[in-house]
Amino acid sequence: MTALAPETLDLLRQVSTATLTSQLLKVAGLRTRSPLDIRPLNPAKSKFVGPAVTLRYGPLREDLEKSMANMAAAENPTRRAIEESAPGSVIMIDTGGNITGGAVGDILAARMIYRGIAGLVTDGAMRDAGPLMAMDLPVHARVFTPPPHTASTLAIGYNETISCGGTLVFPGDIVVGDEDGVVVIPRHLADKVAVSGLEQEQVEAYIKRRVDLGEPIAGFYPASERTMADYRAWVAAGKPEIKVAVLF
Amino acid sequence: MTALAPETLDLLRQVSTATLTSQLLKVAGLRTRSPLDIRPLNPAKSKFVGPAVTLRYGPLREDLEKSMANMAAAENPTRRAIEESAPGSVIMIDTGGNITGGAVGDILAARMIYRGIAGLVTDGAMRDAGPLMAMDLPVHARVFTPPPHTASTLAIGYNETISCGGTLVFPGDIVVGDEDGVVVIPRHLADKVAVSGLEQEQVEAYIKRRVDLGEPIAGFYPASERTMADYRAWVAAGKPEIKVAVLF
Amino acid sequence: MTALAPETLDLLRQVSTATLTSQLLKVAGLRTRSPLDIRPLNPAKSKFVGPAVTLRYGPLREDLEKSMANMAAAENPTRRAIEESAPGSVIMIDTGGNITGGAVGDILAARMIYRGIAGLVTDGAMRDAGPLMAMDLPVHARVFTPPPHTASTLAIGYNETISCGGTLVFPGDIVVGDEDGVVVIPRHLADKVAVSGLEQEQVEAYIKRRVDLGEPIAGFYPASERTMADYRAWVAAGKPEIKVAVLF
Amino acid sequence: MTALAPETLDLLRQVSTATLTSQLLKVAGLRTRSPLDIRPLNPAKSKFVGPAVTLRYGPLREDLEKSMANMAAAENPTRRAIEESAPGSVIMIDTGGNITGGAVGDILAARMIYRGIAGLVTDGAMRDAGPLMAMDLPVHARVFTPPPHTASTLAIGYNETISCGGTLVFPGDIVVGDEDGVVVIPRHLADKVAVSGLEQEQVEAYIKRRVDLGEPIAGFYPASERTMADYRAWVAAGKPEIKVAVLF
Amino acid sequence: MTALAPETLDLLRQVSTATLTSQLLKVAGLRTRSPLDIRPLNPAKSKFVGPAVTLRYGPLREDLEKSMANMAAAENPTRRAIEESAPGSVIMIDTGGNITGGAVGDILAARMIYRGIAGLVTDGAMRDAGPLMAMDLPVHARVFTPPPHTASTLAIGYNETISCGGTLVFPGDIVVGDEDGVVVIPRHLADKVAVSGLEQEQVEAYIKRRVDLGEPIAGFYPASERTMADYRAWVAAGKPEIKVAVLF
Amino acid sequence: MTALAPETLDLLRQVSTATLTSQLLKVAGLRTRSPLDIRPLNPAKSKFVGPAVTLRYGPLREDLEKSMANMAAAENPTRRAIEESAPGSVIMIDTGGNITGGAVGDILAARMIYRGIAGLVTDGAMRDAGPLMAMDLPVHARVFTPPPHTASTLAIGYNETISCGGTLVFPGDIVVGDEDGVVVIPRHLADKVAVSGLEQEQVEAYIKRRVDLGEPIAGFYPASERTMADYRAWVAAGKPEIKVAVLF
Repeated sequence: MTALAPETLDLLRQVSTATLTSQLLKVAGLRTRSPLDIRPLNPAKSKFVGPAVTLRYGPLREDLEKSMANMAAAENPTRRAIEESAPGSVIMIDTGGNITGGAVGDILAARMIYRGIAGLVTDGAMRDAGPLMAMDLPVHARVFTPPPHTASTLAIGYNETISCGGTLVFPGDIVVGDEDGVVVIPRHLADKVAVSGLEQEQVEAYIKRRVDLGEPIAGFYPASERTMADYRAWVAAGKPEIKVAVLF
Repeated sequence: MTALAPETLDLLRQVSTATLTSQLLKVAGLRTRSPLDIRPLNPAKSKFVGPAVTLRYGPLREDLEKSMANMAAAENPTRRAIEESAPGSVIMIDTGGNITGGAVGDILAARMIYRGIAGLVTDGAMRDAGPLMAMDLPVHARVFTPPPHTASTLAIGYNETISCGGTLVFPGDIVVGDEDGVVVIPRHLADKVAVSGLEQEQVEAYIKRRVDLGEPIAGFYPASERTMADYRAWVAAGKPEIKVAVLF
Repeated sequence: MTALAPETLDLLRQVSTATLTSQLLKVAGLRTRSPLDIRPLNPAKSKFVGPAVTLRYGPLREDLEKSMANMAAAENPTRRAIEESAPGSVIMIDTGGNITGGAVGDILAARMIYRGIAGLVTDGAMRDAGPLMAMDLPVHARVFTPPPHTASTLAIGYNETISCGGTLVFPGDIVVGDEDGVVVIPRHLADKVAVSGLEQEQVEAYIKRRVDLGEPIAGFYPASERTMADYRAWVAAGKPEIKVAVLF
Repeated sequence: MTALAPETLDLLRQVSTATLTSQLLKVAGLRTRSPLDIRPLNPAKSKFVGPAVTLRYGPLREDLEKSMANMAAAENPTRRAIEESAPGSVIMIDTGGNITGGAVGDILAARMIYRGIAGLVTDGAMRDAGPLMAMDLPVHARVFTPPPHTASTLAIGYNETISCGGTLVFPGDIVVGDEDGVVVIPRHLADKVAVSGLEQEQVEAYIKRRVDLGEPIAGFYPASERTMADYRAWVAAGKPEIKVAVLF
Repeated sequence: MTALAPETLDLLRQVSTATLTSQLLKVAGLRTRSPLDIRPLNPAKSKFVGPAVTLRYGPLREDLEKSMANMAAAENPTRRAIEESAPGSVIMIDTGGNITGGAVGDILAARMIYRGIAGLVTDGAMRDAGPLMAMDLPVHARVFTPPPHTASTLAIGYNETISCGGTLVFPGDIVVGDEDGVVVIPRHLADKVAVSGLEQEQVEAYIKRRVDLGEPIAGFYPASERTMADYRAWVAAGKPEIKVAVLF
Repeated sequence: MTALAPETLDLLRQVSTATLTSQLLKVAGLRTRSPLDIRPLNPAKSKFVGPAVTLRYGPLREDLEKSMANMAAAENPTRRAIEESAPGSVIMIDTGGNITGGAVGDILAARMIYRGIAGLVTDGAMRDAGPLMAMDLPVHARVFTPPPHTASTLAIGYNETISCGGTLVFPGDIVVGDEDGVVVIPRHLADKVAVSGLEQEQVEAYIKRRVDLGEPIAGFYPASERTMADYRAWVAAGKPEIKVAVLF
């Protein structure tokens, strides 16, 4: 697995998922890097950054419920994801969009927190909303629902390439979450978009300040040559406080 | 209708819907007892327990709007559900998943509160979100939407067997709601799962405390023989405060 | 475009979208005036009233991304909607229900606020949830999602007749939003339903007070002849405080 | 139940479902009289006319499969529909759109044929496609699928008011099927639209002949005053063969 | 509008839609040029080639049915598409995926045939299946359904840029249909893919013959350098009959 | 992999998928063994029996199209499934229900035929309908569509446990197809349901003959004790021709 630059995860913490999707489109032509139709179940605890560990859940076969849903077995995929993942990992669960059962509840979430899991993402459901909303685990999913996932699904794959909400995910891809949702960065692009994404954030903070003050968007946003020249002049000037829309 | 043990409803108030779906699977092999894709519209007022009174809404036939949507008629199903239900009842409305109109708004909700209705569940929509969010009626539904249900549906059945969000509901079934959603307990199983569910809650509170402190899940959760032995020893010891993961 | 009575927009600010859909059904037989499956992204900032300016977004053709998504071009529909709309306008975006990209993010929203846009409605997604939730623009949409809409759509129409969430919208129609969602009032009906809607609000406030105190709904709500007689007597009496269910 | 004119069913056999939906809109403002998203499973055997007998299927509760799916019980709704319906009836099954199991297979279909059932309509699935396609029972449904409906549903209602594919159906409504699909005629309107529908068919056959020969549609179709005058003159002339587009 | 090479339409008649989508991906990176979830209603009459004329249908507003659905009005979009299109045109109707009514029935289809329309494509429904299946108009759509589109939709746009089944369509784009479905070729690419597509067809006919005889696909299909060398040698040899898998 | 009894596949060729789903429910309580919403693309060539070889397709990542969609690579999953499967295998492709591209077209189908593949099943689409409908490969899928699957998906797994249309499939499971669709038999149950399924077919042929002649279903079908006694007597009598409904 490609090594990341040491500062990459910290840089990514300062970049929004919106900006990262824009960068992935711009630098690599990638259009589908954000799982569709999921949301932070607690927007106030939506942010995380970390490498993906994957799980795949398939439909139940009733005669296998006892054997395959048994977390006492060392090879159980859910158990492996929880117990073998490096601290800082993000667990991503491909359920094929199944919301008939909650993929994870409060006790497994508690164990994930103890083991230092950075975040949990699934295109399915979660359960135990009551306690979970008070716990320190960022979770992005479709909905909450009471039933256990073992009533309708079986864990059938650990750390494979998966689809999550229509996004291809390789183990080790860098996953970022915030209030908007989730972006999955191909690992070899993480260093690059961390830097270019942070640059975009800084330029857009500058743009936003001027737009707030009355700058029209035409020729100014999305960032034009003129915008970038203004921005660089403002940076060169030591980033003075902006008090009017048309600064330079 | 089967009589319930006098303490059953009170016990059920202490058990989460998540735990109850697990119990229904365990004791009776029931996998589909939770209406899909509904949610508490106000998570802070999501909890209720009570026997089901049912309504069924069908698609509009335009020439019947005046006669069938008329709540002045004594046989109007909506009126019957609101005026004839025993205090403590839970009204469940089968709309076939129709979200084009709000099944109930603030005035009918006010009447339900006055009459002691414990909760309202529909696989359709609700309206009057503004006032309703401040009222003391737990409501689980798909969404809010402005139009009246009479613009697109007609009430066609009162206290029949219905489907609500893919769950079969008989009048008198015991319905429980919380932050996760809703579970519909077949009436004859309510006494049993009230007791076994509360037991599961107590065991899982013990498990969660130890997992919070570092107990690995392998062989411990879901509850194994060892877990149960530990739990019983802890209960026998007078439930002392748990300060380390590996207690016994 | 039909001129509105000068007080119409102010009257509409006092009427809920639920009431307005009831009025449009009652006075003109209109059943589908509320975009389906959208919601206020911030319920605390859901309210707005204003005339519609429309945008239409179609699916991407990859070779046109550079030219058609370019807001530097004067004819760009998104730019026109933002820069040419009269203050007080409501921008409505027909995406055909596409939630793969956010139609608008925080910088365009900032410009809309500066230009006095009253509200933003789309049957698609929005992005930049973090900053947007703190800004003073009422937004109704399906969801938040990180990617830019230019990753999957192109703006192809400005101020045409559109469909938004299954509702036909003409430029100039009067659009109202609140916690329930959105209603689109045909412009020629706005004066009428503003007056009749406010009347309905006042009658229903009276009804609700009495229902809260114990008045049964049968023959009283929806408003009957008796209800209206009571209401008029109460108004004639100077709207005294109501302390019992059966007032007259 | 309203008696039909003796010739009504025979007249309806000469009118297409397309024409009947147009008539129901024209004479009674009914817009939703055709179950959505169903089709004749064998277009060559799609035609039928008859009064509705209804069934309602709900989701399975696993512990009731043995008792409720038992057709040995006299009160079993499916058995009642098959054994108690008058010859000429059309059986309509409301499954809530469930396609996980086939509502009816070849043996029940054989019994329906023996008992003179005119047609079978469901918003769910059918099974036993192989033999069924060779049998003389017009069937309109969503799809074929192998599993029995008893694997996932229970029959819970006989001859109630139902929804079928988004259309309200009362027992006794007159149901007509052909290659396009199905129309459900409110019983009290059947005599009227049988006559007006047949008239429309005759006018449109005349219109189609002239359009085939080159008559422009503007001012001619949908039928204008001029069209009707031409048609009446042609009828008065003894319906001579039409050889040119512009006949009169 | 760009002029086409005179032979382009004839060449396109010899190329399958499958091949054309492959060419559009290869030569221009276009991934979404085929309307989703439509099919030839009569596979035996599925083939057509021609430039697009577009229509856009929006949701009904009940008070506009009489005025806007009136084909006696010269500006009616449906009438314009039928009466003003050049012979050989393909009419494409954007319904937003609405299947509640048939966009076109047999009489309008008869007029289209008379006027030389080459094909009809809609992401909605059609009606009058009985007569239509016997008429000489290739039609691609979702389904048949009895009701008229005027029961639920209004024609709101003529010859605009539209979305049809998730594909962007400009008037004048070259549309091709066959048993697989439909491909929409950006007009400026039509000459190019007509030539390259026909070349691909010829190479693949050669490949298929050899694969039928036993040639493994590895290194042979998709066409490799070796495959192309073999193909060119075979062409140079005068295209002799191929009797064994490994020809050269 | 469990060895099958030598006659099992031949027995299964005489049993319908409908009967096999009934047997799997009866003998093992399995309710979800039939992929949902797929159909034989050519009902006249729908029948096959064989062990499953699986493929899994995930969403495209644009920068991997060249490398991962390359069938020149020995590890390409599609190539492996086609070139390494034993004759008689059934290839099942899990696309997650993606119908944006055809999983397989005519050249790969030709190679499958040459290699003796018994059938092809996917919850996605197929392409090249024209030639494919004339080829001798039973195919069950959702729809036909022109684009190649490589425009929107990547093959990411070979011979893993997959989900296909909501059914769990292990490599080696025995898959059967006919006009109704497909059933996936857990390998260890194949011998058993082949025998019990064929017995059910024979009993039901007897039942159907009598029902055709007028036997009521009550107490006779589904097969009761009386039915089975009658059947056994008829078998013991040498299976004489049945000419009346009430035979014994």
